[in-house]
Formats: sequence, C-alpha cells, structure tokens
Amino acid sequence: MRWCRFQSGARQAFGLIEGDTVTEISGDPFSAHAPTSTRLPLGQVQLLVPVVPPTFYAAGVNYREHVTEMASRRGVRPEFPPNADVGYRANNALIAADEPIVIPKDATDQVQYEGELVVVIGTRCKRVSEAEALDYVLGYTIGNDVSERTWQRGDRTFWRGKNTDTFKPMGPWIVTGLNPDDLRVTIRLNGRTMFSYAVKDAIFGVRQFISRMSQYLTLYPGDVLWMGTDGATENMKDGDVVEIEIPGIGVLRNPVVRER
Amino acid sequence: MRWCRFQSGARQAFGLIEGDTVTEISGDPFSAHAPTSTRLPLGQVQLLVPVVPPTFYAAGVNYREHVTEMASRRGVRPEFPPNADVGYRANNALIAADEPIVIPKDATDQVQYEGELVVVIGTRCKRVSEAEALDYVLGYTIGNDVSERTWQRGDRTFWRGKNTDTFKPMGPWIVTGLNPDDLRVTIRLNGRTMFSYAVKDAIFGVRQFISRMSQYLTLYPGDVLWMGTDGATENMKDGDVVEIEIPGIGVLRNPVVRER
Repeated sequence: MRWCRFQSGARQAFGLIEGDTVTEISGDPFSAHAPTSTRLPLGQVQLLVPVVPPTFYAAGVNYREHVTEMASRRGVRPEFPPNADVGYRANNALIAADEPIVIPKDATDQVQYEGELVVVIGTRCKRVSEAEALDYVLGYTIGNDVSERTWQRGDRTFWRGKNTDTFKPMGPWIVTGLNPDDLRVTIRLNGRTMFSYAVKDAIFGVRQFISRMSQYLTLYPGDVLWMGTDGATENMKDGDVVEIEIPGIGVLRNPVVRER
Repeated sequence: MRWCRFQSGARQAFGLIEGDTVTEISGDPFSAHAPTSTRLPLGQVQLLVPVVPPTFYAAGVNYREHVTEMASRRGVRPEFPPNADVGYRANNALIAADEPIVIPKDATDQVQYEGELVVVIGTRCKRVSEAEALDYVLGYTIGNDVSERTWQRGDRTFWRGKNTDTFKPMGPWIVTGLNPDDLRVTIRLNGRTMFSYAVKDAIFGVRQFISRMSQYLTLYPGDVLWMGTDGATENMKDGDVVEIEIPGIGVLRNPVVRER
C-alpha cells in the first residue's frame, strides 16, 4: 500500500494511492480507518509530509564510505560509531516533496544533501528483539538530511546545521510491505547521478536500531527513524534540483533556492 | 491563568484552574477555546503533561555554577557555551507530575535530577527580536531533565542518557503572565533543599534563546524550551521523592523507582 497525506482545500487528510488515484481515508494509518467516497487524481493533490512524527529519530553516521569520505575532506581519521546510538532531528524543518529547500542568506556554500531511507513506526513497542523489530514498522519513505557543514561542525548542537526550516524534505509517501534489505538509494543533482548505495550496507540496520532503541524508549506510531546516508556529499546551490530515489518507494524531488 | 491538561474518564482535555477547581475547556490554549460547563475538584483530576510539544527544545548547559561543578567532578576545565545553541529532548520520555521516574535495571547509580524552568511557545513566530520574544510565549511550567551521567558521557548522543522513558517529568501546569526574570528554582530531594537559583542568572536568557532560534527555525504553538539547571546535581535512588519548585508556578513532584 502507498499511504500519503494531502491538502484538499482547507482539509488535511491521509490517502491511499492506487495507480494515479488517491482515495481519501477517514482516520489514519496507525489506527481505525476507512476509505471515503472521495477520489482524486494524484497529479491534482498537494502532497504533505506523509507523517508528522511524535519523535524524529536519525541514525546520523551509519555508512562506512560516508564516514571515510567526510573525514578525509576534513583531514581527520574516520571514526565509526561503536553502537546504534540514535540522534534527533526537528519537525520545524520538515517539508514535503516538491517544496523548496531554502538556504539562508548567511549560510556558507557548504549546504549538502544526504539521501536516505526513512522507517515509519506503525505500532507502539518497547523491548523488542531484532527478529521481531520489523513487525512494528508501518512502512518506508525517503528523506534528505540537508546539512550546512560549517554550522554542523561549529555549533554545540545540530540545531541550525541540520534543522534550519526546510532542511528536512521527507516523502513523497509511505510504502508498506517492503524488505529494507532489498532497497537501494540513488541521489541525483540536476539529473546527474551523484551516488548510489544499498541500504543493507549500513553499519547498523533497521532491526538493530529499533531493537536497541526500544530497550530504553517506547516507540510510538508515527515516529520516524532516518537511517543515514552513504558516500561523499556535494554542495547544492540556488536553482539546483535534488532527487533521492528508492525504487519500490519513489522519488523525493526538491528544488533549491537561496534567500536574497 | 493556570492551564492544565487532564484525563477525565476516557477523555483528555485542557482545563483552567481557579483555586481548587478545574474548568474543562473545549479547544486548546493555542487557538479558539471556550469554557465548558464541566467543573471538577483539582484533587480529583489526573493531571497529564501540560502540553505535548511539536518540537522539544532544551538549552542544555546554561548556568555557570552547574558547568563549573560538573566539570570539577570530572577533573576537566569548565567550558561555557559561546552561543545560545539549543539542543533537543524527546517526547517519549515525558511524564506528568506525580508519575514515577523509573531507573532502568542496567543504569548506574548516577541518575540525577536537573530542575529547570520550561518556556511554552504560544504563537508561531520567525525572526523575532529579543525585545519582542516574550510576546510569543504562552506561559511557563517546570521540568526535571533527569540524566544518567555515564550514558550522557559515553554514548554518541543523549538518546538514553537524557531520553530514557520517564526521564522528562514536566508540569504540573502552565502559568501565564509571569516575567521569567522574577522566578527562582528550588530543588528538593526527600524534602531537603539541594539547591536554589535565580532563573535570570542564566548564561543566555529566554529572550536571547527565542530570538536566536527564530532566526533559523519557526517556533510553533506548544513547542517547549527547557532553560537548563544551575548548581551541582546529586544521585536519585529507589524510594526517593524529587521536587522542583518555582514559586508563582508550583511544585513538580515525582517519586523515583528502580526496576528490579
């Protein structure tokens, strides 16, 4: 199933996508829901961020080539994370597919994409094993963990380096029934493939993160876990278009503008 | 005004407290609302966390004596934050007044309180000056930023050191019309005063945080900003009762239990 959230006039609703048609759903994917009689052409609905999470988790550094490349650019030794210690991002920064990533006036030119898989929790859980972890997942979507590298390195926290408004594109929708081990992420800038990697090459996988997190934290329906990116990342500038594609899910496309 | 959130049978609702009576409100403090005819004795309602924030901000280290004392215990030099770089906490960890702080089995004995002022944003804002920052505040409540110090220092992020379930007591209610500069925080463990400090001694004040954050981030109604604590902090153990008092707001009291 493909779950979306969309704006229809003054209404925000969840919908199920079949082919090119969105069926509006009363309720939400996490609890009782039923189809309504409203059907709309997918091309005519304004997609919203597919879920606004109660808590917004991010694996952060979780792929070896990304760690190695980014360390090499800074002239430091790569340090791989010893444990699946999850981090956080912030809801203010979320934007939907096709909405612009806005680079603030005072940002440097080091504003970079990070294309990654996003796990959407479906069912409340605590203390689950790795073997059962995926039973608590509703589905998967795509995220772009946009980062201003000088703020990321220079500030005490990731507040503006990672969470400036518009720095967290997520979408276009949530797909259920996938095996994360089968997925590949491809990042394109202005149509050119910049990097492509297999989700399963992560240092810590989806099952490991969910199981470890849930030993201390209750995971709630709608919580999202961004799995981290692989490879080197490059700058985005005014007028660029960045696309993150995960076959089986879709394409998360966003234009880039710089404030003047 | 004193705003609370409470459970009444199967219902969760906002309420306004006058004396010992809660008047149930239809709607919420951030948008259109009106009193209902339901009035309940304050002692008979189960208070909930007074707001579940869209984004949960925390100043982190923001008081000189706390920085100095904690550095001294670790035998390192104190480092004061150069800017109001805000951090994050997580909603899974929130509990209301009187709910137990649960120390996990595998935590060390270094589970400590941090009593602090909590600012609740009332109105969406972006790029506000320090002079106008408080216009966007609904009111103030009390937080206890419970921390497992070995996890806080040893993990790559604050995920379990700060955000283990039950580690973020907040409440008991939100009080409007206060000047944060007038407020004092007193921390008691088992009835004994452990520390007391003036909110205005912060390295960065409420106005400075809101103004700086809002240069990059949109602040939304219901977002909370925890202002950090002062002084040394001590361990809490099974059977303890910790109270954070801010005269003008009230007392946030929580029992402590250790999992067996």
